[in-house]
Parts: sequence; structure tokens; C-alpha cells
Amino acid sequence: MQIIGYTESSQGAPFETVTAAGRAMQYPKATEAEINKAVELARKAFASYRFATGAQKAAFLRAIAEEIESLGDELVKTVMAESGLPEGRVKGERGRTCSQLHLFADLVQEGSWVEAVIDHGDPNRQPVPRPDVRRMLVPLGPVVVFTASNFPLAFSTAGGDTASALAAGCPVIVKGHEAHPATNLLVARAIQRAAKRTGMPEGVFSSLSGDYETGQALVEHPDVAAVAFTGSYRGGKALFDLANRRPKPIPVFAEMGSINPIVLLPQYVEDHAEQLAAQLVGSVTLGAGQFCTNPGLILLPEAKAESFIAAMKKALEAAAPQCMLNEKIFEGYLSALRKLLGAGAVEPLYAPSENSAAAVRPTVAKTSAAAFIQNPLLHAEVFGPFTLLVTWRSEEELEALLQSLEGQLTATLFAEGEELLSHKALLDSMRELAGRLIINGVPTGVEVCHAMQHGGPWPATTDSRFTSVGTGAIRRFARPVAFQNFPDELLPDELKEGNPMGIKRMEG
Amino acid sequence: MQIIGYTESSQGAPFETVTAAGRAMQYPKATEAEINKAVELARKAFASYRFATGAQKAAFLRAIAEEIESLGDELVKTVMAESGLPEGRVKGERGRTCSQLHLFADLVQEGSWVEAVIDHGDPNRQPVPRPDVRRMLVPLGPVVVFTASNFPLAFSTAGGDTASALAAGCPVIVKGHEAHPATNLLVARAIQRAAKRTGMPEGVFSSLSGDYETGQALVEHPDVAAVAFTGSYRGGKALFDLANRRPKPIPVFAEMGSINPIVLLPQYVEDHAEQLAAQLVGSVTLGAGQFCTNPGLILLPEAKAESFIAAMKKALEAAAPQCMLNEKIFEGYLSALRKLLGAGAVEPLYAPSENSAAAVRPTVAKTSAAAFIQNPLLHAEVFGPFTLLVTWRSEEELEALLQSLEGQLTATLFAEGEELLSHKALLDSMRELAGRLIINGVPTGVEVCHAMQHGGPWPATTDSRFTSVGTGAIRRFARPVAFQNFPDELLPDELKEGNPMGIKRMEG
Repeated sequence: MQIIGYTESSQGAPFETVTAAGRAMQYPKATEAEINKAVELARKAFASYRFATGAQKAAFLRAIAEEIESLGDELVKTVMAESGLPEGRVKGERGRTCSQLHLFADLVQEGSWVEAVIDHGDPNRQPVPRPDVRRMLVPLGPVVVFTASNFPLAFSTAGGDTASALAAGCPVIVKGHEAHPATNLLVARAIQRAAKRTGMPEGVFSSLSGDYETGQALVEHPDVAAVAFTGSYRGGKALFDLANRRPKPIPVFAEMGSINPIVLLPQYVEDHAEQLAAQLVGSVTLGAGQFCTNPGLILLPEAKAESFIAAMKKALEAAAPQCMLNEKIFEGYLSALRKLLGAGAVEPLYAPSENSAAAVRPTVAKTSAAAFIQNPLLHAEVFGPFTLLVTWRSEEELEALLQSLEGQLTATLFAEGEELLSHKALLDSMRELAGRLIINGVPTGVEVCHAMQHGGPWPATTDSRFTSVGTGAIRRFARPVAFQNFPDELLPDELKEGNPMGIKRMEG
Repeated sequence: MQIIGYTESSQGAPFETVTAAGRAMQYPKATEAEINKAVELARKAFASYRFATGAQKAAFLRAIAEEIESLGDELVKTVMAESGLPEGRVKGERGRTCSQLHLFADLVQEGSWVEAVIDHGDPNRQPVPRPDVRRMLVPLGPVVVFTASNFPLAFSTAGGDTASALAAGCPVIVKGHEAHPATNLLVARAIQRAAKRTGMPEGVFSSLSGDYETGQALVEHPDVAAVAFTGSYRGGKALFDLANRRPKPIPVFAEMGSINPIVLLPQYVEDHAEQLAAQLVGSVTLGAGQFCTNPGLILLPEAKAESFIAAMKKALEAAAPQCMLNEKIFEGYLSALRKLLGAGAVEPLYAPSENSAAAVRPTVAKTSAAAFIQNPLLHAEVFGPFTLLVTWRSEEELEALLQSLEGQLTATLFAEGEELLSHKALLDSMRELAGRLIINGVPTGVEVCHAMQHGGPWPATTDSRFTSVGTGAIRRFARPVAFQNFPDELLPDELKEGNPMGIKRMEG
């Protein structure tokens, strides 16, 4: 079922999709006419929605949160059935989804996010008068959001990408993930109801189901202004290439995953082996390892390897089997695992003999620094409950390991006291790798806040200058416009001389 | 001559280039080894330069300005000889170049440009503690700057792109423009001296001469992190494509020109025909029309066309012939002009019979709204002293004209009093077109200030979210990094709890 503006439509032929626990579902694929209709409505909606006030956008975003909350148990059960995620996680994710909506509502209601800058004119300047120039951010236009398989709520239909684009003043067209079509439909209808009851223009939101072709048609549509994606490198890269090959290229922010290196220093391992092993195994197995911030690489000092590995095995034994999102993801996990374990010089440390999509157990392997540095196959992300321990024998080898890595979402260091303070240079190297640096914590559990940076150098994302989590995410969908020599009456309120909105502004 | 770190080199075979007034010059083309050496030094310099303090970078930028000023008449004469620009303009541009360097020096010395955001942790938050997350901008890495033909100083070797990249903490490799090699060499040596005397790491700056192949090798080098370009659509698009096809794509900000529509409303034309015509002709002919903000399109109400055109002809008669940058640009101008004038339904209003690179006179033509809307050939930029008048007969037709336009750097409206205030909807349409909106002024003469936005939707630039003029230009070369649970001692000064730098920060 397609949600197109204020209507529902199902013109297309059905396609089959398989959700958690092997449930096959049939869903109509959006037709070309439906795609064009959704974009056409978004284009029209943009003409008024781009001028919606912060208060109006905030009311809309809050109404979405309310409508999602009022879905109650039906939503929780649907997500659980489609994704295999446990109830606690689903409820937690629903809470996060609604908090995000409220956070962006607060942001735009307050109003300073437009980064207003004012340079007053000076008619007496020589040799030419200085013009009055004032700048603020304005929305880009209709945004296509590709939803993530691993966050059926928080990074899907009403997730962070949708919330930040709507907050910026951009209509959104969601390409629903085929792994949770019923969840998508419930949430899309909730957004539709919220849009109606807060008086938003029809087309401010649509949601289409389909496959790669559907996504391609959306990205190539001339009236689409930007794209947000969370998923695999292959998927993100394909959209990036499509968008850049358009006659008029558009920005794509694709978050394409990461192996999130964890660096352990010897004294810390010695002092905290058991607690550290439990903490890391907890992070590796959280959500069956299906997080882009999953720690897939642990750089372990050789001298402490034996005791740490023993502690880790104990923690791994204690880890309960978990349900993966769906068979396709489980098979992708097994295939990536096979490729990595078969790449040579890799020693499995903990590999369950029985494993299934419904009850997956973690796998851990080990290799040497030299083998890892030489072999790019060992750098691949294994999406699931897996981590690779790489042992190093000197700080030079550790530095060489870091130098061999590609761009990451996160990089983490475990160390304390003198050992931590004497490794500033190591942190400096790690900073070049990633969008977020963590000390003595795990990368999973991305805090949604103003200061969060969820991004990083290629191939973690397509553009390290942006984030998809936290209020900074809105910046992806807005561009600055300068207003030169405007009379006060014609300036947007954000730039009027008297600052009627009372926002923070930079005065030049 | 290549400036590579603290050395000079000329290993390559000479290539011939033709500057203003047909002067042929021979310059060595950078060899592959020289290119690799420059990037290798930049990569190494980045390791320390990325941590240069605001005060250190400011001292370097100010020293560049001093070194340029101390070149005195030699520089002015060299620029004049190579570019054909008159002395006043060259001196003005030198002033602008040095002001830009001081502006970025002030910006980084003050320090708030890093957009610091602080979210304090909360160990007691349920169900999980809230981490302490702090974010700031850090530099991307070595930047390749392609210099512009039309600004031999202000958008060349030590121009806005170089100044903003160095300010961000990025080493710069300049690909010098073949139209002013001697100017490039003088300025590159000045930067080299400034780097030495302020103790910058070798490789913080290099300058290479060559052709398209040289630029291609630089953009494709794996250690280059970003590209800045000012020039033609063809040139900018080629670099954008190259950068996106790299195994690891990098951001390219290319400013690719614009036709800068000017909208005239009837009452304003009636009240100010002569002054307005003189003002617009002044802008069209400024710098022989060789500005990316040159008004190449004037949307004129049909009812006032006759009187306005008469006034314009008078102003055109009075315009003195000017020297163009070089023969190649003059020939490009003639060829673009021929194509546009020959596109059908175009009536030349003022077309000098005699025209040469050394003494070019402006050309003005006229067409109807219907012809313009139908024919994309009439939308092409003619780089030089040309403008196209398009007459419209109704506000619907004016709106259709605006809808037919592609992305622009600027859009300008001439109107005042009631006529201005009643055309808010028109300004709203114009806002979607451009990065800068101007009322009752000309788009040429881009003010270098905090609020400036010199950018705009494709094809004006490759990314409407950035600017190449004004302090905002630094944002192209920096990415946010979040620091999670860092002890105060290991945080960058900008993020330390006590705010030792006293910068503006957002507290979450």
C-alpha cells in the first residue's frame, strides 16, 4: 500500500518480501505513476511548507510522535513480528523515535538552527558603500529517505532522517524497507494523520514500497532535491553514483557502516579484563550485532591477549542466542563471516556450531597485525554479532594498524590514568579515522543530542562533513541564502533588525 | 617553476601559454614526481598543521598578506601585463586579497568558527547513563585549489579558497592558472616565505603549473582530501566527476558561473530609467564583464521596454572599450555570443562592429519571454560584457521565466515602495533560484563578510550548501568530530570545560 499525500493507493503488482522468522509477505510495488504523483505532491507542498514557521513544523513533528504513541501495542507487536526484535528493544526504539521528533520540534521552535548572520551596511564606506547582507539557512526541497533494516522505527519511516528533513522544511518521500512493510504502513499512516490534523499541505509526506528500481526512480526524479540513506556500502554507493550522474546532481548522505575499531591498552586490560570483556561482548552482541556502530575490530596488546581472550570466552558463553532481523540478513552475515574466516591467517576463537536466524550466537576470531594490514578482506564489515581481535606487539604496530584502516563512524580507546594521558598521539591518529571518538565506553548506543556526530570519512559515509544523528542532521537538508539590501518588512523574521524571534544570531 | 614545500623545481617539459595582449609564455609542466612530492609533503604537513592554534594560523595568514604587499609595484605590473586588467582594479584586488587573509586570520584567532557544541553527561539517567559528548570542526586534509582566470589575485594563489583552506587547518596545493603564471609564481613565493618565517611545516603550501592532466593527477591523488575550483561549468563538472569516480570520493566545491537574472518592475523602470540603465550597463561592463556575478539576463516589462532600451543604448555608447583577460577568453566570448545571437528570435540591440581582445565593447540583445522559455541555448552564460534583455507582458509570464531558469549565484529585483512590498511572492520564487538575493543593487562586487553566500543551486555550484566567499567558506574544508567521555586534559582547548579560549559554544 502506498501512502501518497492524503490518499492511499495500490496500483502496482505485488512483490514478495521475507521478514523475520521467514514470514513471506506480499506488497504492491509503487508504479511509475504513483512515484510521479508522490514527487509532484511533494514539489507542490514545498511551495508552502518551506515557509512553515518553527511553531507549525514543531506542532507537526509532535503530532507524529503522538500518533505513533497512540498506535500502542499494535505497533510494538508488528515491529516484533517483522523484525524479530525483542519487546524491550522495540519499546526503547519507539521512545527514541518520539524523542527525536520532539528534539527536532524543540530545535525549530526555538529557531536558532538557521545560523542567522548579519552584516550591517555602511553607506559611507570608501571606495564603495558596504551593503547590508544577512544570511540564513533555507530548506533544499523534497527529500527521499531510504529506511534502514536494523532500526524499523528510529531510522525508518518517522526516524531521524525524516524528522530532520521535515524540521528543515523539506517534504519527505519515504522508500519503505522491504523487511518491515507492515511497520512502515502503520507509521506512514500515523504521519499522514499528523499532517492532516496540523494543517500541513498535502504531499509534505508520502511513503512508497518497492525494490531497487523504485528507489532509483525516486533518486533520478528531477524534482527530488536530496537523499538520505542508512544501510550497506553497496546500497549507499549505488545511490551516490545515481545522484551524481543526474543531469543536475543532488546531495546524498549515505551512512554505509563501519567496523568501529576498539583500541585496548595493556594496563587497562590487565586491570579490567573481565569487566572489559563483558562490556565488549555486550556491545558486539547487542541487537544481534546489527548496528552500524557494532565494534567489529578489537586491537589487543599481544602481551595481554591470553587472559583477555579467556575472559572474553566466558562472556561469550553467557551470551543468549538472539533473533536476527530476517533470513536475508542472517545469510549475508554467514556469507561475510565465511569470507573473512576463510581469508587466511584467521583463527576462530569462538564459533558456535549451531546458528540460525532465529537463534544466532556470536562468533569471534583472531589474527595478527601483519596479516590484518596486508589483507583488505579482513577489513570488511560483518553485519551481525562478530568481532575480530587483532593482536599488536608494539606501539609502532598499533599505529600501522590504525593507518591501514578506512574511514569509520567511531573509534574507541580503553585506557585510564597515566596510560591514557600518555597516549595523546594515539588519540590524534584515531581522530583522522572517525566521526566520533570514545574513551572507555562502547560505540553502540548513539546518544541523540546536539553534539552527536554520526558520520565519518568515506566509506563510513558519503560526506564526512555531515551527521545523520543529533540535531546537526538538519544541516544536510538546508542551504544558506544571503539577502542583500532588503527592507526590514521583506526579510524573513529570523533576519529582521529587531530579532522578533529572539534567536541567537552572529553579528558581523 | 613549481613551488614544492620549501623548494623550487622545474623538471617538466615547457608548455606554452598565452596571456593578455597575446603574450606567449613558456612554463614547465609539473611532472608526476613533482606532483607526488607536493602531495606527500602536504600529507606530512597536515600531521602537525591540523593542530596549529588559531594564533599560529593567523600569524601565517597575516604574513602572507604582508609578503604580498611587500611585492609592491612588481606584482601590480605583472598582473596588469598578464591579465590586461587596469591598475586600479589590480590594486583593488590586491587589497581584497589581503583583507580576505586578515578576515580569516581574525576568524581563526577568535576561534568560534569550530562550532563547538557541548552536551554534558548524566551518570544517573535511566535506563542508561547519558554520555558526555562534545563536538567541534576539524580540518579535512590537503586541499587542491584551482585558481580562477578572472581574479588573478583574489581567487587565485593566495585567494579566498587558499585562505579559507589554510584557516581551516588544511595544507593547500595550488594548480596555478595558465593565464597568469608569473603572477602565480610571485604570490606562491610570497606564501612560501610567509610559511617559513612563521614556522609552518614544509608542505603546508605548494603551487604547481600545468594543464588539465596536472589537475586530474592532483584530484585523483589518494592523499588529497578536497578540491576548490572557480571557473567554467565544463571545468567544474569534469573535476566533480573525477572526484566522485575515485575509489574514495572527495568533496569538490566548484563555482561554475551564472547568468544572474535581474528582474525589473515597471514603476521602478519608469521612475529611474536613466539611472537604472547606467547602473546595469556599469555592472555588465565591469571588468569587461568577466565576473561570475555579471548580470547576463535582464527581465524587463514589455510596457517599459522602449524607454529603458533607449536609456541603455545611451549608457552603452558611453562605455569605454576594455581589455579582456586574454585571446582565449575573448574568442570564447565571441563564440558564445555567436551561438546565442544565432539561436533564433534574438534581436541584437547594440552590437559593436569592431571588437578585439584589447578593446572589447559590450553587446546587448533582446528576446521575448516565450522564445527564452522554449530555447535552452538562450540560457547559456556568455562570459564577457553581454546581457540579454527578455521582455515580459504579465506577471504570469515573469513567473514562468523564473521557473525556466537553472540555479544561479544571484537573483536581483529592482522595485521600491508599494511596488516592492506587493511583490513578496516574486522574491519567494527568486529565493529558490539563487544563493544571494539583492534588492536595488547590482550583483557584481561581492562583499567579503560573514553573511556572504557566494554559491547557489546546480549548475551555479556543485553544492548549494556551501559558499566560496565570506568566512562561511571555511566550512567546506572541515568536518565535525564528537569526543565522548573524554577527560578534560585530553579535550581540544575549544571543548574544555572551563572554555579557556573564551569562544562561543552551544551548550545542549
